[in-house]
Amino acid sequence: MANIQSGIKHVQGFKVAGVAAGIKKANQLDMALVVSDRPCACAGVFTRNLVKAAPVLLGQESLKMQADKVRALVVNSGCANACTGSTGYANAEQMCAWVAEGIDVLASQVLCMSTGVIGAQLPMNAVKNGVELALQALAQDWGTTAKAIMTTDHYEKMASVEVLTPNGAYTIAGMSKGAGMIAPNMATMLGIIVTDAKLSVAQVQQALGFATDQSFNRIVVDGDMSTNDTVYLMANGASGLAIESDAEFVQFVRALSSVCKKLAQDIVRDGEGATKFITIQVTGAKSDEDAWKVGQTIATSMLVKTAFFGNDANWGRIIAAAGRAGVAFDPDQAKLWFMAGENVQAEGALLLFEGGMPSSYLEDDAFKIISEAAVIVRLDCGLGTGEAIIWTSDLSHDYVSINAEYRT
Amino acid sequence: MANIQSGIKHVQGFKVAGVAAGIKKANQLDMALVVSDRPCACAGVFTRNLVKAAPVLLGQESLKMQADKVRALVVNSGCANACTGSTGYANAEQMCAWVAEGIDVLASQVLCMSTGVIGAQLPMNAVKNGVELALQALAQDWGTTAKAIMTTDHYEKMASVEVLTPNGAYTIAGMSKGAGMIAPNMATMLGIIVTDAKLSVAQVQQALGFATDQSFNRIVVDGDMSTNDTVYLMANGASGLAIESDAEFVQFVRALSSVCKKLAQDIVRDGEGATKFITIQVTGAKSDEDAWKVGQTIATSMLVKTAFFGNDANWGRIIAAAGRAGVAFDPDQAKLWFMAGENVQAEGALLLFEGGMPSSYLEDDAFKIISEAAVIVRLDCGLGTGEAIIWTSDLSHDYVSINAEYRT
Repeated sequence: MANIQSGIKHVQGFKVAGVAAGIKKANQLDMALVVSDRPCACAGVFTRNLVKAAPVLLGQESLKMQADKVRALVVNSGCANACTGSTGYANAEQMCAWVAEGIDVLASQVLCMSTGVIGAQLPMNAVKNGVELALQALAQDWGTTAKAIMTTDHYEKMASVEVLTPNGAYTIAGMSKGAGMIAPNMATMLGIIVTDAKLSVAQVQQALGFATDQSFNRIVVDGDMSTNDTVYLMANGASGLAIESDAEFVQFVRALSSVCKKLAQDIVRDGEGATKFITIQVTGAKSDEDAWKVGQTIATSMLVKTAFFGNDANWGRIIAAAGRAGVAFDPDQAKLWFMAGENVQAEGALLLFEGGMPSSYLEDDAFKIISEAAVIVRLDCGLGTGEAIIWTSDLSHDYVSINAEYRT
Repeated sequence: MANIQSGIKHVQGFKVAGVAAGIKKANQLDMALVVSDRPCACAGVFTRNLVKAAPVLLGQESLKMQADKVRALVVNSGCANACTGSTGYANAEQMCAWVAEGIDVLASQVLCMSTGVIGAQLPMNAVKNGVELALQALAQDWGTTAKAIMTTDHYEKMASVEVLTPNGAYTIAGMSKGAGMIAPNMATMLGIIVTDAKLSVAQVQQALGFATDQSFNRIVVDGDMSTNDTVYLMANGASGLAIESDAEFVQFVRALSSVCKKLAQDIVRDGEGATKFITIQVTGAKSDEDAWKVGQTIATSMLVKTAFFGNDANWGRIIAAAGRAGVAFDPDQAKLWFMAGENVQAEGALLLFEGGMPSSYLEDDAFKIISEAAVIVRLDCGLGTGEAIIWTSDLSHDYVSINAEYRT
């Protein structure tokens, strides 16, 4: 397997486009289209929010019917088409139908995604215009396409990997957008992953489930879970390389996970107002699920996140957050370390808390670590073997500004 | 019953003091003392955080032994004495012992509370100095005493009520401090309530449990739950009026609840960086507990709180928060209204969302409401009869500043 790349060069059988449809303010990219020249096996992972946007509901229905025949995916930014009732659902259907007409397939072979403001109906004239523009623009410009799905993101997020096999190479490539409303417990953003490997629907479902658990479900920006969060994986087989043996499947899943991890971590890096990339590593919990809950409670604590923003090694807030996570936790058994960087395997962590009280460390050393752009918080609960890793960001003035003024 | 007062004049048999002990930076009030001239029946309600500060652990032990003989309560601000291990516990014992020595009672008849930074040991020289100063200063200066328990609070919080009975009057008076780390699901702050009515330990326990459920457990600032949250109720009987009949007890509980409600709401009003007082009223849930979870998820959503700060009637974020609360919720059955003010019984709410989509309202009308200093969010889930009311605040730049720079 070659190394993971930050861009996308080419995936056989796929064409893409990103255009300015007029959904956002004038001349901003706001519609993306991905088209395969042959049917794809497709899997989706969707928000677990009970309030699901129209494109999520429609996508779930379409995959029930045509998961082995998907041909295209159309995405708009600027309007989430969520909380829009039957009108919104009909609009999502129409958006797919226009694309289907343009490439001469059934509407159910086209999926759609929306992201943006909740509670507004899609401006269908702009959507129609965008679909026409995008159909004309289909090519290999992945960067523009990745830009077109952005909302408050600062930069486009792409990753790809070429997987070498004895019979040749296939590619897995993906785009994501995130910024706000990022939480674990599901897709939590938009992710579009395509591959020219050949897989069955059952294979793409299993692979995507595993890869999202290792990536998109491990990130937290603000703990909110969107109505629209979706990750799709489309496999068109254009490389001619079929994933058949267990070893081939494991290789595929590893490569897919690495793409998803890069896309997910970039969402945290670009989280609204984020100034730090924080890795929360919880070990020694009674179960993985307990470790997860502790990590998520720490990652969503406003007091923890503001302390990180202020370069304040106020670890008491981390212990206090762990104590209210709703799972077994005994501060007398716990240990807490800080370490600079992103590599949880690295040596040299600074022990801050042990035996129910502060360890003897120098405040300057803690300050030095927390002032870094990337910080690892390692909490050992001392109770068992459960563990979890969560990636998150700090809470800054910019987060407040962005979200207080989002619709203005 | 007379109306609730914002100050405290006098409660028979109690003396108080607030002094500058030197725990905070020079010449700031940081120690409070409340002494009764006779034994009190006392009840406490404590944080449910598994990480409990030394004064919480010690207070729970003392109440097991001497809940009918409490004579004094000593409070320091500037240091939480949490995550401080056996040294911290011994320091809390010593703090009580110095007070006990000064008024010639057993150490177990003195309770203590601490609030401030987690993970630092109490500066015991300053504590000793403060106890001596406070013992000398005991008088009726409730305002100074209420100031001495503050951390990032902007103003002292006091409330009192005189309860008229056929046999005379008794008083219930209280102080609180809050500001950050305010969440429901427990005391979530410091509250000190005294009365000169005569009650048994069983009566003060029952009354305090009921009153805190109606007040301190309904407030959310940032969703964090402190290691130190405690509310104590001390009843010394100095008025000579015993609470005996059911009617008398009901009258007492009502009066106590009104004092607690005022103290709790003032904590929200003075929440770190708060610019708005938001009442979240959830009705029509499957159960009261479900309504509670929905309300709490809305109240702790950073996206909802920043929208309020920005005067943005972005109700989609409220519906989205309800959808991830982890309880039954169907957006097609739900209705959402905004209304100015604090009185949930008032008429004239603006319907924003119904039948799974926006209702036909004017954005200007919604903007007008959300621009007010007090806003009611009413969400009817349309599923049952469960309901809950939660009071919260918005999330502002000042919240971030205060908490990023708390220890500097």
